[in-house]
Amino acid sequence: MSVQQPPAHAAGIPSPCSGDAPRVGVLPSGPRDSIGDVAGVRVGHATLHDGAHQTGVTVVVPHERDAFLHKTPAAAAIINGFGKSVGLMQLEELGVLETPIALTNTFSVGTLAAAQIRAAVSRHGEIGRSWPTLNPLVFECNDGYLNDIQAMAIGAEHYAQACDAAAPEFAQGSVGAGRGMSCFGHKGGIGSASRVATLDDRREFVLGALVLANFGRLENLTIAGQPLGRKLAALKHEAHDDSSGPEKGSIIMILATDAPLDVRQLARVAKRSAAGLARTGSVYGHGSGDIALAFSSAWQIPHLPDTPMPAVSMLHETQLDALFEACAEAVEQAIVHAMWRAASVTGRDGHHRRSITEALPDWRRLFDMKSSEN
Amino acid sequence: MSVQQPPAHAAGIPSPCSGDAPRVGVLPSGPRDSIGDVAGVRVGHATLHDGAHQTGVTVVVPHERDAFLHKTPAAAAIINGFGKSVGLMQLEELGVLETPIALTNTFSVGTLAAAQIRAAVSRHGEIGRSWPTLNPLVFECNDGYLNDIQAMAIGAEHYAQACDAAAPEFAQGSVGAGRGMSCFGHKGGIGSASRVATLDDRREFVLGALVLANFGRLENLTIAGQPLGRKLAALKHEAHDDSSGPEKGSIIMILATDAPLDVRQLARVAKRSAAGLARTGSVYGHGSGDIALAFSSAWQIPHLPDTPMPAVSMLHETQLDALFEACAEAVEQAIVHAMWRAASVTGRDGHHRRSITEALPDWRRLFDMKSSEN
Amino acid sequence: MSVQQPPAHAAGIPSPCSGDAPRVGVLPSGPRDSIGDVAGVRVGHATLHDGAHQTGVTVVVPHERDAFLHKTPAAAAIINGFGKSVGLMQLEELGVLETPIALTNTFSVGTLAAAQIRAAVSRHGEIGRSWPTLNPLVFECNDGYLNDIQAMAIGAEHYAQACDAAAPEFAQGSVGAGRGMSCFGHKGGIGSASRVATLDDRREFVLGALVLANFGRLENLTIAGQPLGRKLAALKHEAHDDSSGPEKGSIIMILATDAPLDVRQLARVAKRSAAGLARTGSVYGHGSGDIALAFSSAWQIPHLPDTPMPAVSMLHETQLDALFEACAEAVEQAIVHAMWRAASVTGRDGHHRRSITEALPDWRRLFDMKSSEN
Amino acid sequence: MSVQQPPAHAAGIPSPCSGDAPRVGVLPSGPRDSIGDVAGVRVGHATLHDGAHQTGVTVVVPHERDAFLHKTPAAAAIINGFGKSVGLMQLEELGVLETPIALTNTFSVGTLAAAQIRAAVSRHGEIGRSWPTLNPLVFECNDGYLNDIQAMAIGAEHYAQACDAAAPEFAQGSVGAGRGMSCFGHKGGIGSASRVATLDDRREFVLGALVLANFGRLENLTIAGQPLGRKLAALKHEAHDDSSGPEKGSIIMILATDAPLDVRQLARVAKRSAAGLARTGSVYGHGSGDIALAFSSAWQIPHLPDTPMPAVSMLHETQLDALFEACAEAVEQAIVHAMWRAASVTGRDGHHRRSITEALPDWRRLFDMKSSEN
Repeated sequence: MSVQQPPAHAAGIPSPCSGDAPRVGVLPSGPRDSIGDVAGVRVGHATLHDGAHQTGVTVVVPHERDAFLHKTPAAAAIINGFGKSVGLMQLEELGVLETPIALTNTFSVGTLAAAQIRAAVSRHGEIGRSWPTLNPLVFECNDGYLNDIQAMAIGAEHYAQACDAAAPEFAQGSVGAGRGMSCFGHKGGIGSASRVATLDDRREFVLGALVLANFGRLENLTIAGQPLGRKLAALKHEAHDDSSGPEKGSIIMILATDAPLDVRQLARVAKRSAAGLARTGSVYGHGSGDIALAFSSAWQIPHLPDTPMPAVSMLHETQLDALFEACAEAVEQAIVHAMWRAASVTGRDGHHRRSITEALPDWRRLFDMKSSEN
Repeated sequence: MSVQQPPAHAAGIPSPCSGDAPRVGVLPSGPRDSIGDVAGVRVGHATLHDGAHQTGVTVVVPHERDAFLHKTPAAAAIINGFGKSVGLMQLEELGVLETPIALTNTFSVGTLAAAQIRAAVSRHGEIGRSWPTLNPLVFECNDGYLNDIQAMAIGAEHYAQACDAAAPEFAQGSVGAGRGMSCFGHKGGIGSASRVATLDDRREFVLGALVLANFGRLENLTIAGQPLGRKLAALKHEAHDDSSGPEKGSIIMILATDAPLDVRQLARVAKRSAAGLARTGSVYGHGSGDIALAFSSAWQIPHLPDTPMPAVSMLHETQLDALFEACAEAVEQAIVHAMWRAASVTGRDGHHRRSITEALPDWRRLFDMKSSEN
Repeated sequence: MSVQQPPAHAAGIPSPCSGDAPRVGVLPSGPRDSIGDVAGVRVGHATLHDGAHQTGVTVVVPHERDAFLHKTPAAAAIINGFGKSVGLMQLEELGVLETPIALTNTFSVGTLAAAQIRAAVSRHGEIGRSWPTLNPLVFECNDGYLNDIQAMAIGAEHYAQACDAAAPEFAQGSVGAGRGMSCFGHKGGIGSASRVATLDDRREFVLGALVLANFGRLENLTIAGQPLGRKLAALKHEAHDDSSGPEKGSIIMILATDAPLDVRQLARVAKRSAAGLARTGSVYGHGSGDIALAFSSAWQIPHLPDTPMPAVSMLHETQLDALFEACAEAVEQAIVHAMWRAASVTGRDGHHRRSITEALPDWRRLFDMKSSEN
Repeated sequence: MSVQQPPAHAAGIPSPCSGDAPRVGVLPSGPRDSIGDVAGVRVGHATLHDGAHQTGVTVVVPHERDAFLHKTPAAAAIINGFGKSVGLMQLEELGVLETPIALTNTFSVGTLAAAQIRAAVSRHGEIGRSWPTLNPLVFECNDGYLNDIQAMAIGAEHYAQACDAAAPEFAQGSVGAGRGMSCFGHKGGIGSASRVATLDDRREFVLGALVLANFGRLENLTIAGQPLGRKLAALKHEAHDDSSGPEKGSIIMILATDAPLDVRQLARVAKRSAAGLARTGSVYGHGSGDIALAFSSAWQIPHLPDTPMPAVSMLHETQLDALFEACAEAVEQAIVHAMWRAASVTGRDGHHRRSITEALPDWRRLFDMKSSEN
């Protein structure tokens, strides 16, 4: 039996201008305000930051058991399918993921897929023999502005390194797969957040988001309803800075929850990432691969058919609204964290992305005004 | 040959607090700031407003030719499929609509589908005999709070009446299918807006939206980034007014453009309505049927196979971003128009929905501050 | 708790030329060889057979409890979406059906949807008031060759009549919604069959199919691999009979099982109807609405959120192959039954469809040869 | 302008037992009876056949121009999504392929994706810099019974070798990606066929299929309606041969046509591969990745937005039936060719797959009887 009891969540809503980044929304966060608040979920990075190589790998481990033997219910939402992620076709057919979730740059997807295969085969020698083959699951964004993506600098060892580093506490910003990413003309990368959803029957569940944020036109950036992008564009214009270049972005949004949801329900949750993403100013641009994946850590499916199948009471459909709100907020907050926690990076051919905190050092003042006004 | 030249669009961006409703976004509107800016598109209403019957029919006519003989390229986006619209399965298979688009209350869908069949058969006696059957296309929202929906008061004559009334200029707010609708705890209904998209090659196309707005939790209402819903909820709380009731909403979003787009491209445009919808505070609630339909008036498909097929140069995919931005803005603006142009209505069992302009008579002041601040 | 024990299925595989129709496939049937073998499933008809009115209504009742209060897990497969069925959008979003399943002619869909609404409202007065609206579920084929479909002769009373008649034993062929249907140039209509699936762990489940068969070009008809259509076309050619006319068909395939499957698994089962359909000679023609719906009678979802949700052990995914085989065979057999059990019908304007048993009275001889040969 | 004139197709329907393999269906073939009949389409192989390494690469080149600069309209049909192909998400979003289509074993997908990236970057240095990244397109089946798939023996050089070898005439059977594949318990691999579709207006187009056949339970094998599988299973049983093992198959079906079809129409064609596949005895097994991809060689989309877009008259929808029939037949015939043209292979750990012509040397006699009988 693989259903876990939902934890009692510590909760709190800080003011928008406290902490290291603006706070969006109205729901309480879990204690870490990250995907690490979902019991069993761990995140690890491997980061390359050497001259023209500004890239990396980030891994999300869905629970503490063997990912292949105990498959995790999961569903994706393809908000805009301009992307090269692998593994989604089988995930959609079978409704499970069977590896840690890997994120990296676009041209390293093949390398990481191969690394996932090798790692699984080394544990389970019958994969691809008497057992079926493994379904690798790798997401990507294009970090080609800062990173020499053509160099294909990522190797299987970086996948192993990220897996080994996986923990409930993890760095955000210009780390792992986020090292070379850009967001709204500034530095993007890895961000995470969580929100606690309280159902009508008072049960509480946590929903955590981890994003790889590499999207957005500067002019559109909006934080908690504030049109920051227009301010920043004006500042750039004054400084004769035209570094932003054409948009060739993407965002990957990984959503985890301890709520017992089936695959259809997880798909409905995943779609609500589109609302959180839109709040930051995105219209899901033509060239942006905007992909969400939601999984439940509350139950697993056994690989072997002779293991008994779990009997799980899923949430009643009318209770999903609380999780939909949590999803939209957690995604919006995770994007904010990705930008605010990112350090400026200089990479390939001297290309430079400035962090938003460097570009807008007085950001707290803006949100102070805002919060006193309301 | 059925491709029309795009018109030269008159354009202008008024300030957010001028006019009868807040102005959102940054793109210019067409001269009417409505779906009537798309050449050939006409809208008509039939409205019932008699005691417990507060409901109606709205019709969008896609172009000036016979809708069955000259089928209109179209695609839908099911943002949340809690809804009873008819006609979308065949529309998705064939990529065309072949009737005027009808909107009404949930329980009158069958009546309007039958009315569409009768109207088409009366023009083309071979439909259902030597010709295939007609695919009715009817969208709906549930107006059961203000309207006695169980009375099924809509008849075929109301469909005819709405078709006869169709014109490029038309009323908005508590009219037609919008008569009994609610939005964010206030009066909703029919709203429309348009935006002009300027491509990289300087060509201009107009995208118009017409919404039937019947969705949203009051607390979430956001206009141009302003959290109006929280203000209004506080006012309601002070007034001991708990009239809002549970959310059982929906929104239908009809998008028209004179840009030459194929069906796949129209589907991509339709999906961007989710961004405009999210900007107003929606997370696509569980019980909300959030459906978008996009069509192009630039070309048609002949019904009869011996008529030559048109040869149309579609837009290059990289030029779609301008239309994506226009779609999100037009939808957001159309929702604003639906609320701001709606009159308060009292209906079934004395149920009452107050218009937002009545609830918030000083709304201009809020947007004045906002616009001076930025 | 709403999971029922699977029954012990009586089984038997008769020879292909015994009984009233050829026997296809290798799996055993349930005792009735019909969808009535799935515990709780009942079928009823109302038939109009008066001059130009050759049409009707067929209803499939999914279980013995109130269909709205105890929603049935279900999923559809749109094999070719040229069709006007209603209810599939919400069914796909929520994964449940909440009414008896109705089948009729294309132009009567609206009438039956309204009848379903009225029937549900009369039981549950809060539908469309404090409860959400009902999702009608009506499937259709075009019987316009034999029936004066433009007359819209079906009324709400026929829906009630079919519901009242519902029973595990029911007529097949030119009855109910099948009255005016054609199949491979001969008389089609309602057919049903069942197959018993034995899992690797020896558990048995039954899968029943009911089809409304109104598709197919004569030349393509294939029964148990025999190209009967070419034989029949040659006979027709000799007789200077060119009555077949253009194909404007469709087939509706309703699948029921007592296996505990979730919605994603039911969708996988439903897709296998395409294999059974193809075996009879179909290529899913452009103008044919080929739609399958699969439901499980093993569990239900409560309408009210304060009722405890069931905890069900679903089948392990690797055990689905037995149900896939059963689905393909049951659909193929149900199509055979629809044709072989249909009586010849004369309808509108003297149009006549001959039954296949009349056209090919010595069909047993053909299958005798076949079975002795193998 | 990129529309090519359809060629005049030489056509002929040989008897079922002439030639090297049974002939299925009733439509004429093109002169090669292979995908090479579609003007511009070329196929190449690289084959590894050394002890435990029994695997390879097959490449389908869609036309004669640069595949990245002149993108090919294409659409997929996921009949059963148990598979690890890459590239389909972006293909579905944008409706184009931009590389040669690569086929290989499951664990070599990543290697081939990387090889496609390197090959494209070497031609176009701005890919991943000022141009977007490339979308690799690689399909796979699991050849782990004959091939040591864990060895990952395929390298980038095999992709190059297959591309260099591409030609309108090409080998079939146990070659290229088909080297280690199994089908219905016998040797499978690469098969190809073509059919000529004659529209109502007498225009002719060719549709070619190339399959990588690695699926099927022996008992189900059906050729031209003949239940060969049951015969073969009986022979195996007599010989105490239980080598077949569990089914872990898949089939990839590549469809090419010179008909001018848009992406939605190509998707409709691709879905008809399910009918051809079912005719051979498949029910799209749980563990079988059954994927079809259809493309048109009649027009291309320019990569650069300042190149004029083509204006193409697509086929009228009602004319698609001829292509649907052609698709089903070509797929069925290509599967027959894959089996009949495959040589027996011994691979990993002495595993052996016997060709069907070796197992059933008197197959012509069976089809002789059949054809004389009809």
